Amino acid sequence: MASAESAELRTIYRSWSDRMAAAPEMDLPTLRNLFEEWHLPTAEPTRVTYEETVAGGVPALWCLPLDAAEDRVVLYLHGGGFVVGSTATHRKIAGHLAKAAGVRALVLDYRRAPENPYPAQLEDAVAAYRWLLGQGFEPGHVATAGDSAGGNLAISTVLKLRDEGDPLPGAILPMSPWLDMEHVGRTLDSNAGTDALVGKEILHGMSGMFLGEGGDRRDPLANPLYADPAGLPPLYLCAGGHETLLDNAEQFHEKARVAGVDSTLEVVPEMQHVYPFSAGRAPEADATIAAMAAWLRPRLGL
Amino acid sequence: MASAESAELRTIYRSWSDRMAAAPEMDLPTLRNLFEEWHLPTAEPTRVTYEETVAGGVPALWCLPLDAAEDRVVLYLHGGGFVVGSTATHRKIAGHLAKAAGVRALVLDYRRAPENPYPAQLEDAVAAYRWLLGQGFEPGHVATAGDSAGGNLAISTVLKLRDEGDPLPGAILPMSPWLDMEHVGRTLDSNAGTDALVGKEILHGMSGMFLGEGGDRRDPLANPLYADPAGLPPLYLCAGGHETLLDNAEQFHEKARVAGVDSTLEVVPEMQHVYPFSAGRAPEADATIAAMAAWLRPRLGL
Repeated sequence: MASAESAELRTIYRSWSDRMAAAPEMDLPTLRNLFEEWHLPTAEPTRVTYEETVAGGVPALWCLPLDAAEDRVVLYLHGGGFVVGSTATHRKIAGHLAKAAGVRALVLDYRRAPENPYPAQLEDAVAAYRWLLGQGFEPGHVATAGDSAGGNLAISTVLKLRDEGDPLPGAILPMSPWLDMEHVGRTLDSNAGTDALVGKEILHGMSGMFLGEGGDRRDPLANPLYADPAGLPPLYLCAGGHETLLDNAEQFHEKARVAGVDSTLEVVPEMQHVYPFSAGRAPEADATIAAMAAWLRPRLGL
Repeated sequence: MASAESAELRTIYRSWSDRMAAAPEMDLPTLRNLFEEWHLPTAEPTRVTYEETVAGGVPALWCLPLDAAEDRVVLYLHGGGFVVGSTATHRKIAGHLAKAAGVRALVLDYRRAPENPYPAQLEDAVAAYRWLLGQGFEPGHVATAGDSAGGNLAISTVLKLRDEGDPLPGAILPMSPWLDMEHVGRTLDSNAGTDALVGKEILHGMSGMFLGEGGDRRDPLANPLYADPAGLPPLYLCAGGHETLLDNAEQFHEKARVAGVDSTLEVVPEMQHVYPFSAGRAPEADATIAAMAAWLRPRLGL
């Protein structure tokens, strides 16, 4: 059974769902402000400092755990359907992951849709990665990570780097990635009754803003379920058993394995979308953060 | 002339004013989310870590600058009309002040109105101060600080401690304090055209939630303009020249001086309400933070 602490994330998600349902004409600033509450379930990670920067033209925030390796970094892409979310919502979750792994994290405030539709987000993530290499980080000492839409970016960024012949990062960590831009996944229906936040309506709204009018829902860099994963670095995917997007992680994991990629999938029963948001509060989140960190360290040469 | 960086705070305030005017029936969660944007004008202070705690029953956040004195503390009471604002909105401004002074800060998530009207906020601040002494802090090594409604609390907390015979803190730093619960201040009209956020309407709404039906608008612990400041520790007040609440700081400064209190007032021309929110970005904010810190250190025995 889900811990009481993990149940709090579900409570927050249900309150958002209720408030969005009660205000179907909610404007974009109000929707974004609603999702800014996303930092609330995460405990403040101790012994982490922060510093603003600009990474290849993209505003970003360093999360700098005390005593962490200075030459290893997680490039963190936040979730929020490419439309909402920010460094403020994801500073703490990225801080927990970085601290557990003993590395630093760089959280990007990439351009968001609909003002900036696809591929602005991908371009920003690629630019930030190249900026990190320009700062002296070894490619193999960098990991991409992200949740939800940011989990998509954590993958698509590396696909694009591979396609363009760039040196690749050492690992990819997508949490509850949202990949399926066609909204046809199996768990979209089968988990509709248990996922407190993500349903077809919100996904349709956000994919419409992301891809714009006439966007290609099978573009492999927007929907990595249509990509060839061959040659990707090791992957660690996690997802919650109660998620409508669960099968996005499952499908990509299977595709990766078939393509010969070293891929690990952790599915925790009864967990909600991006359950590691409860880091520092809920045992399930802390266990996954610890598992990701333990998996990551040797892949970054630590 | 105000710097371009300080002008950004005015832009944010105008956008809030426009959005509140466009939605006169805005519900409380939406209003609170709107004000959660208050952290945006403040740069992330570098070399500060954070840690959640519970201070005398009150949820709170430590701001711990690296290399700061561990036995000196600013008890920081956030603004927001006693109704909005949080540790999340004020973590960075408190971090800047603490770092500049070389001390730690404790930011309180005191109970907010209207769910918890006066004197819940005051009780929480007093409880947190007593908790600090219980943790081993010397009274004279503690300062109270706050902005807007939190500037009121920074003063009223010490008034209540004095009235109850508690040992007093070493200093009080109210920034743009909101004291006048009768809404009769001179600058309320004379600066109505220059203050981008604070006007009679919002003040009436918030004082109504704070004091409740039939609350006493001249209660000296809710409206310190009716208090006797005799015996208060040294005060450093600041306010912006364009503020409707400017004369709240001016009036209390005069009352304090007449009562023999060591009081300093800094008014920076053309600045908006709580202009130190632009810390790390605007020279006026940084200058005031530096001046407060330089003033504070000897008063805390540093």
